[in-house]
Amino acid sequence: MQQSETAILLMHCADQAGIVTAVTSFIHENRGNIIYLDQHVDRDQDRFFMRIEFDYDQFIIPKKKLHDYFNTLVATRYQMSFELHFSSHTPRMAVFVSKMSHCLYDILYRMESGEWKVEIPVIVGNHPQLEKIAKRFDIPFEYVPITKETKEEAEAKQLELMEKYNVDFIVLARYMQIITPKFLEKFPLKIINIHHSFLPAFVGAKPYHAAHNRGVKLIGATSHYVTEDLDAGPIIEQDIAKISHADEVKDLIRKGKDVEKIVLSRAIWYHINHKLLAFQNRTVIFE
Amino acid sequence: MQQSETAILLMHCADQAGIVTAVTSFIHENRGNIIYLDQHVDRDQDRFFMRIEFDYDQFIIPKKKLHDYFNTLVATRYQMSFELHFSSHTPRMAVFVSKMSHCLYDILYRMESGEWKVEIPVIVGNHPQLEKIAKRFDIPFEYVPITKETKEEAEAKQLELMEKYNVDFIVLARYMQIITPKFLEKFPLKIINIHHSFLPAFVGAKPYHAAHNRGVKLIGATSHYVTEDLDAGPIIEQDIAKISHADEVKDLIRKGKDVEKIVLSRAIWYHINHKLLAFQNRTVIFE
Amino acid sequence: MQQSETAILLMHCADQAGIVTAVTSFIHENRGNIIYLDQHVDRDQDRFFMRIEFDYDQFIIPKKKLHDYFNTLVATRYQMSFELHFSSHTPRMAVFVSKMSHCLYDILYRMESGEWKVEIPVIVGNHPQLEKIAKRFDIPFEYVPITKETKEEAEAKQLELMEKYNVDFIVLARYMQIITPKFLEKFPLKIINIHHSFLPAFVGAKPYHAAHNRGVKLIGATSHYVTEDLDAGPIIEQDIAKISHADEVKDLIRKGKDVEKIVLSRAIWYHINHKLLAFQNRTVIFE
Amino acid sequence: MQQSETAILLMHCADQAGIVTAVTSFIHENRGNIIYLDQHVDRDQDRFFMRIEFDYDQFIIPKKKLHDYFNTLVATRYQMSFELHFSSHTPRMAVFVSKMSHCLYDILYRMESGEWKVEIPVIVGNHPQLEKIAKRFDIPFEYVPITKETKEEAEAKQLELMEKYNVDFIVLARYMQIITPKFLEKFPLKIINIHHSFLPAFVGAKPYHAAHNRGVKLIGATSHYVTEDLDAGPIIEQDIAKISHADEVKDLIRKGKDVEKIVLSRAIWYHINHKLLAFQNRTVIFE
Repeated sequence: MQQSETAILLMHCADQAGIVTAVTSFIHENRGNIIYLDQHVDRDQDRFFMRIEFDYDQFIIPKKKLHDYFNTLVATRYQMSFELHFSSHTPRMAVFVSKMSHCLYDILYRMESGEWKVEIPVIVGNHPQLEKIAKRFDIPFEYVPITKETKEEAEAKQLELMEKYNVDFIVLARYMQIITPKFLEKFPLKIINIHHSFLPAFVGAKPYHAAHNRGVKLIGATSHYVTEDLDAGPIIEQDIAKISHADEVKDLIRKGKDVEKIVLSRAIWYHINHKLLAFQNRTVIFE
Repeated sequence: MQQSETAILLMHCADQAGIVTAVTSFIHENRGNIIYLDQHVDRDQDRFFMRIEFDYDQFIIPKKKLHDYFNTLVATRYQMSFELHFSSHTPRMAVFVSKMSHCLYDILYRMESGEWKVEIPVIVGNHPQLEKIAKRFDIPFEYVPITKETKEEAEAKQLELMEKYNVDFIVLARYMQIITPKFLEKFPLKIINIHHSFLPAFVGAKPYHAAHNRGVKLIGATSHYVTEDLDAGPIIEQDIAKISHADEVKDLIRKGKDVEKIVLSRAIWYHINHKLLAFQNRTVIFE
Repeated sequence: MQQSETAILLMHCADQAGIVTAVTSFIHENRGNIIYLDQHVDRDQDRFFMRIEFDYDQFIIPKKKLHDYFNTLVATRYQMSFELHFSSHTPRMAVFVSKMSHCLYDILYRMESGEWKVEIPVIVGNHPQLEKIAKRFDIPFEYVPITKETKEEAEAKQLELMEKYNVDFIVLARYMQIITPKFLEKFPLKIINIHHSFLPAFVGAKPYHAAHNRGVKLIGATSHYVTEDLDAGPIIEQDIAKISHADEVKDLIRKGKDVEKIVLSRAIWYHINHKLLAFQNRTVIFE
Repeated sequence: MQQSETAILLMHCADQAGIVTAVTSFIHENRGNIIYLDQHVDRDQDRFFMRIEFDYDQFIIPKKKLHDYFNTLVATRYQMSFELHFSSHTPRMAVFVSKMSHCLYDILYRMESGEWKVEIPVIVGNHPQLEKIAKRFDIPFEYVPITKETKEEAEAKQLELMEKYNVDFIVLARYMQIITPKFLEKFPLKIINIHHSFLPAFVGAKPYHAAHNRGVKLIGATSHYVTEDLDAGPIIEQDIAKISHADEVKDLIRKGKDVEKIVLSRAIWYHINHKLLAFQNRTVIFE
C-alpha cells in the first residue's frame, strides 16, 4: 500500500479561545483531511499544545509554501511556536556510543527491520570497540577519542561530521561523555540521552552502584533531551524494573540494560514520528 | 475555589472531513471556551470519536436547550451518536455486593474523601454480610437474596430499588451474580463489573484457581461494561500483578484483590468523569 | 481448619561454612519439620541471612525455652543476631494518622476482613479528622495535637499510649510528622512509614509538586523503616505509577494515593509475617 | 577475577522431614561451601523443590563421581529427581527462527557482550531471510524449509543438525512452526518458545489480531517449555505492556515485540543458569 503524504504541525502558544477552530478551519478550508488531532492545555502554565496530522494529497497550498502561509495566517496571530514536518522526509539520526552495545543493537535492529522510518548515516564512538557492529550494518563509524585536553577539538570534529553526514538529530546510546554548551547550541532539543536511573534520583556517574548502596527496590532509566544542566533536561520517557535484596550491582546493571534500551527506543520513536514537544522543562507526548 | 460549570460532549460517528471544525466552531461561535478536546479515529472501523469539554459560563445557549440545538445543528448532519453531561450534575451510583468488602471500601473511601464526585444512594447485597459497612457510611443497604428460583423476582425488586433511589449507573463490586438481559436492557452500558482475571483468560468462575492450575506468572483483573455475553463486554481497564511459583491460591486471591479494587475504581473514575465511550466491543478512554 | 503452631526464626551473621546445616540439624533433631527455609548471602557485605519456619507441634523444646536454647546452641557459636516469633502471637500495631484516610482504610479493611492477622489497639492522630473512622471500627482514637513547641511532650504522651495499649510496632499512615530520636530508640526498626515518592528522589515535603515541576513520567511511593535520617531508613517496598504531561499536581496526588496505600500495606504484610530483616541500610525480604 | 568452579544441584521429591538437613550435611561434610540455597515446598502437591549451589574447589568427591554419589547417598533415599550442573560447562543453544529478527538480535547481543555464558553453535531457519544476521555473528545458518508435506523429513534433518552441533537446548525465537512429538521427545523440557500473548489468552495464531478484536487494554508475551499441547507447556515467564484504544494491530505488534524479546531472554537466562525446575505443568524459578 502506498502511503499518502501527510503534514504534521506541532505547535504551542499561550492558551486563548478559538485556536483549535482557527487551525482546523485553516486545514479544512484548504482541503486537508485531519487524521490525528491531539491537543493539550497546561493549566499551570496556561499553555496550549497541539499536534495535528493531515492528508496532504488534496491540499491546495504547495508544500514549500505551507510554512510561510501557516505562519502568516495562523501562527503569528496567536504568537505560536510551531514545527512543520512531512511524512515523506526520513529523519537522519547520528548515534554516539562508547563501549556498551545493548542500546546500539536495539536501535539498529529497529532501523533495519523497518520498525522505524529513520536513516543512520553515521555512528560516532569515543572508543573503537563498537566499530565492528557499525561495519556489520554497513554504517560509517567515526572514531573520535576524547580526553579532557582534547574535548574541544573532538567536539569540533564531531560537529564537522554532523554536517558532513547531514544529521537531523543525535542519540547518545550510553555515550558516557558530557556535551558542552557549544555543541548543544547547534542541536537544541535535538540530542536524546539515556540515563540509567529514574531521574531525578541518582544523577551523575554510577547510578547502579548508588542504587545498590541505597537499598532501593526498583531501578529505572530515563530518556531526555540534553540541555546544559547535567541529567536535568526535559524527560521524554521513564520506566523501571523491580529488583530485590538478592540483586548485586552486576545484576542491577544486567537488568537495567533491558530498561535502558526500551526507554531510549521509545523516546526515539516519539521524536522520529514528531509526537513530542518540549517546553520549559517538560515534554508533551502525543501518543 | 468555585468551579465553573462545564459541559461535556461525547460523540462518535462515521469518520468524515470537517467534523472537528464543525464542532469546535459551534462551541466557539456560541462563546464556549474549549478546555479539553480529545479526538480519536479508529481506522479499522472508520469511526470518529471525540470528547470535548468547555466552559459554560458565557455560553449563549441555555443548558436545557443545548441537547436539542447540538442535535439539530451538528449531530444530525454528521449522523452522530452523542451524550451531553454537565459538571454540576453529580452521578448517582448503586453498588451491588456479595460478601467481599475490598472493592466496596475502596469505593466508599473515594466517595467520602471527595476524590470522586459521586453519590451512592444505595448498596444492594445478595448476602447480608456487608450491611454493617453500609451502616457505617450511613448508606441504605438493601438485602435482596437470590436463588435460582427467585432470580426473576429478585431482579424485579432490584429494578424497583434502582428507580426508587434514582440511580444513574451500577457498579458490581465483586457481586457474584449473572445479570439477566431483562435487567441489562434497563442499564445499557451503565453497569460496570470487575472480573478477577486478565480477560479473555479465565472467563467464568474461580479464575484464581484456574490461574494457579495453569501455572501462570501473572494474575490480573478486568473492569468492563456488562453485556449479555458473560465476561465479554467492552473492557474499560485491566492490570496485572506478578506472581511466582511460591504463591498458593490463597496468595493469588490476596494479591488479586489489590489489583481488582484499583482496576474497578479506575473504571468508575472514567465513567463518572465521562471520559469513556463504548462502541461495538471496545472502549475509547479519554484520559 | 485449625492452624498448627509454627516457629519463625529470622537470623543474620557473618557468612561462614556450615550455618545452614547447623540450623536445620538443630530443628530436625528436635523434631521440628521445616516448612519454609529462605536463605540469602550478601556477597558485598559477606553477610548471611536466613528465615526458617517450622512446625512446632512435635518440637521437644518448650516454647518458653527456645530462645535460650537456640541462642546457646547455635546463635552464639556463629555470632548471630536473631529474632524468634510464634505464629500464635498476633502482633499489635498502632496506626498514626493526620488527615488523609486512604492508607488508614486500606489497613482497617485488611484487618477486619482477616487478610492480616494483626490487632490494632489504637489509632493516634495529630488532627481530629479521622476519629470518625476509628469509631466506625470500634478502635480507640487518641488525639495528640503537635506543634513545634509541644512536640516533646506530645511524643511523651504518645509513648505512654504505646505502653498503655501494649503496642508491638507502629505504622505511620501518611502521618506528616517527623519522629524524634528519643521516640525512635524505643521502637528501633519497628516504625514503618510511607513516603510519597520513589526515594531517594523527592525527599522531604511536597514530593508530588516537585515531581510535577521536574516533569517526570512516573511517580512512586516508598515504604521504609523510620530511622534518624529523614526518608533515609531501610526501604521495604517501592512501586510506581505511570503519568503523563496531562496530569496536574492534583492528578499526581490522586494517582499516587493508590500506590501509597498498596506499597504501605505490602510492607506491613511483610512485617506482620516476619518476612523481612533489616541490616545496615537495606532490607532482605523473604517472600 | 577467576571464577571458582561451582556445582549446582536442582532436585524435587515428595515433601518429607529432613531433606534440607540431609542435602546440606552431604555438601558440608564433603567440604563444599554452600553459596546459594533456595528451597520451595508446593503445599498443594506436597512436593519439595531445591536449588543448591556450592563451591567445588575443596570438595572431596571428584566431579565425575558426584552424580553417582549424590544419587546413591541422598537422592535414592528420598526418591528424588535431580539434575547436576557445573559452572564450568557452557551450555550450547540452538536458535530456530523464521523471518522476524527482534528476538534473534536480543539473543545474539547478550551472547556477544558476555551477558550470557552460552554458546550458539547454529541458527536454524525455515526461511532464508535471517541468514545475513547469522553471518554477521559468524554463526552457521542452516536453512531447513518446511511444508506440510516435508515436515517429517525437515524435522529429521533438524535433529541431525542438533546432533552435529552438539546442542544442549533449543530456543524458538518466533519460529512459527509446531514441533511434533517425535522431535520433542529428544528434547524434553529443553525447548523454550515465546508466544506473543499472555497465555492462556489468545492461544494459537495471530494473537495480536485477536487481542485487538477483543479490545483488551494490555498485551503480553509468554515464554514456556514446549510440550505436546500447543501453547500449553510449563510457563517460565510472562510480562505485559499497556495499550490503549488508539493502538491499531500494527502498534500491538510493534509494542509486543519489546515484551516478547525481554520475556524470552529472561527465560533463557533462567535456563542457562539452571535456575528453574519444571514439574507437572508448572515451573519453579529460583531467582
